[in-house]
Amino acid sequence: MTELNDTHDPKLRSWVASANQAGCDFPIQNLPFGRFSHSADAAPRIGVAIGDRILDLRRAGLIDSDDMNALMAATPEKRAALRALISQGLAEGSARQAEWESALVSQSAATMHVPCRIGDYTDFYTSVHHATTVGKQFRPDNPLLPNYKWVPIGYHGRASSIGVSGQRFKRPQGQTKAPDAAVPSFGPSKRLDYELELGWFVGQGNAQGEPVGIGAAESHLFGVTLFNDWSARDIQGWEYQPLGPFLSKNFASTLSPWLVTTEALAPFRAAFERPADDPRPLPYLDSEANRAQGAFSIELEVLLQTAKMREAGEVPVRLSKTNSTRAAYWTPAQLIAHHTVNGCNLQPGDLLGSGTLSGPEAVEAGSLMELTNGGKQPIVLPNGEQRSFLEDGDTLVMHGWCERAGAVRIGLGEVSGTVLAAG
Amino acid sequence: MTELNDTHDPKLRSWVASANQAGCDFPIQNLPFGRFSHSADAAPRIGVAIGDRILDLRRAGLIDSDDMNALMAATPEKRAALRALISQGLAEGSARQAEWESALVSQSAATMHVPCRIGDYTDFYTSVHHATTVGKQFRPDNPLLPNYKWVPIGYHGRASSIGVSGQRFKRPQGQTKAPDAAVPSFGPSKRLDYELELGWFVGQGNAQGEPVGIGAAESHLFGVTLFNDWSARDIQGWEYQPLGPFLSKNFASTLSPWLVTTEALAPFRAAFERPADDPRPLPYLDSEANRAQGAFSIELEVLLQTAKMREAGEVPVRLSKTNSTRAAYWTPAQLIAHHTVNGCNLQPGDLLGSGTLSGPEAVEAGSLMELTNGGKQPIVLPNGEQRSFLEDGDTLVMHGWCERAGAVRIGLGEVSGTVLAAG
Repeated sequence: MTELNDTHDPKLRSWVASANQAGCDFPIQNLPFGRFSHSADAAPRIGVAIGDRILDLRRAGLIDSDDMNALMAATPEKRAALRALISQGLAEGSARQAEWESALVSQSAATMHVPCRIGDYTDFYTSVHHATTVGKQFRPDNPLLPNYKWVPIGYHGRASSIGVSGQRFKRPQGQTKAPDAAVPSFGPSKRLDYELELGWFVGQGNAQGEPVGIGAAESHLFGVTLFNDWSARDIQGWEYQPLGPFLSKNFASTLSPWLVTTEALAPFRAAFERPADDPRPLPYLDSEANRAQGAFSIELEVLLQTAKMREAGEVPVRLSKTNSTRAAYWTPAQLIAHHTVNGCNLQPGDLLGSGTLSGPEAVEAGSLMELTNGGKQPIVLPNGEQRSFLEDGDTLVMHGWCERAGAVRIGLGEVSGTVLAAG
Repeated sequence: MTELNDTHDPKLRSWVASANQAGCDFPIQNLPFGRFSHSADAAPRIGVAIGDRILDLRRAGLIDSDDMNALMAATPEKRAALRALISQGLAEGSARQAEWESALVSQSAATMHVPCRIGDYTDFYTSVHHATTVGKQFRPDNPLLPNYKWVPIGYHGRASSIGVSGQRFKRPQGQTKAPDAAVPSFGPSKRLDYELELGWFVGQGNAQGEPVGIGAAESHLFGVTLFNDWSARDIQGWEYQPLGPFLSKNFASTLSPWLVTTEALAPFRAAFERPADDPRPLPYLDSEANRAQGAFSIELEVLLQTAKMREAGEVPVRLSKTNSTRAAYWTPAQLIAHHTVNGCNLQPGDLLGSGTLSGPEAVEAGSLMELTNGGKQPIVLPNGEQRSFLEDGDTLVMHGWCERAGAVRIGLGEVSGTVLAAG
């Protein structure tokens, strides 16, 4: 564990009272970045969540422009300095309080935006449990392929269709083919699913042709959001060979609005552990620091609210819960080292999806495909409704948070999204 | 064939004398768009190639900003109007000559840039000949998968590492595993290849959730460049299952600098033809207009200059030659209709790679992997050198052009790129 600097001190409290309430996602120890606006036509501004408020960084005199990608490109030293300034100014007793009160906006009055301009989006496949369970459904005889424990498997995704929490999208249409059908047919997906992921964001980029070594990789990592990578399993099954998923994934993906920085996550680092029989990563993916504390322990849960529940005023019900360290076979530093080892250039604001984070137990699964055994064993909701896959009107909600003894709990906030009818 | 408007009149000549020379890629009937600058620190400007010159559109008073993506987003009517203005102004006898001569720049004095900001890049797999030949090498028993003749297979690629002609890049390093090896090893790729592609660019975008029907698809197509999608076959073979190619492709890809518009290509349309036994495309991919003239007949050739040839002053030697209509199983309109049928939003400046364009004959292959039968039958160059795959110092050059009786030949120009040593 690295020594924690003052911005994590559990005794720190903010003059923003809501930030001090137990269970708040955004205490003064968190300070995540996001982009918000007051009206649909206003240009997004950069803010930091504190309690139920947002500190407008430009109005607080802390930044000169609202270009989040430029802010993300800063060196770790500059980022730490900005964090210290924000922490000091929001702390109880700060002389800045009178000045900064006018730079506060209520979260409930703000419209949140995708937190930065995402140049390229890569989705990884870091959960060996997910890979094994899903692999069984696509390839019963060959669930986990021989490369899985050597290569951090990843593929490029679509940036344009990534939206922010609250996204509503039409059920995708496309080609599917039943195993016993002679020819494919066209229509709305019948096996629409969610995927519980973390979205890791790149801060500093690297020049093309200059790989980032595992030792330097974390200095290129800015922070994390929740990420729902909606997936149409029936479209995927027919289209994905030999070049991977395409239309089954690129109709929509949804991010939580707040970028929780690696600085805020510092108290929640964890050892990177593997079963003793598994191969040791190749040297470009291995370091003592990565083994000791390359992972981040983030609690994750998935909830569902059907249209019927919403009409009846019922709150979302939990479908599953897991922990990112239990679920991920590769750390964010390993993803960055792998992604750049061939000379590929990452840029500030690039998104690296973790892939579906399913833990080892069945109740820790990060998708309906896993929870329902490919749709064969529907789950029964408290109100009696059943779900094999998502239905029109379903709202899917994900939460994430970090907690441990001796540290103040911080939250990643929420990502929600709603399925609309096709057409 | 649509009726050609005056901008294609074979009798049209330009007051830029070099544009009237036989064999010139950029006669007044072409008028492709590109971004150029005079020095490394100058902001790129939008220009149109004419003979061996570039017309600076802002200096000519034709546009207000040098934002190519904004220009590409224009409606087909606005695009046609701009083309007509440029054509009239550059035509022999134009009153604009005196004014526009000062807006001309020599191509040899200009630095060319990637022609627009590429938000998302999708690579397709439109050559059934390529898919069959390569499929045999990856899957001898199962070369052409059952979905191929139904689904325009595509996958997302990396936008950040796309460069413009003249790109020089280090040989990628990565994990590979020989079939008989127990574990993978790490090092420079030993099977580095090129892929001969066309790069189709999106003009007008579509809103998320609103598919573009096959009838409207071409109004979203801006134009075409040459595209070399460099590929590391040994990295690809080990990493690509189950989610597709990743590090084997994203280290570099190279575009030719000039966007040849669909308006310029109008005289070179072709029927979209399929073997009689092949399935008819599903209705969302089929229209009478697409069958009649959805394809574009573009001649393509690949040339190689090794370091030894360069030192000896020898010009590049041709490796293969094909025609895009012979090679492609799907038209650009079908690619756009397919890409958006699930609600995915395309944006101005998005790039749709055709995939490797290999014709039906062995000498029409668009990659070394095909020309050398997976490296087993090296090609012998006129100077006695042999190539199974690319070696350090090799410069790969591609040309493209359109010609037919009764029309003036137009060119796509050239894309070249050079392999540097790893490290």
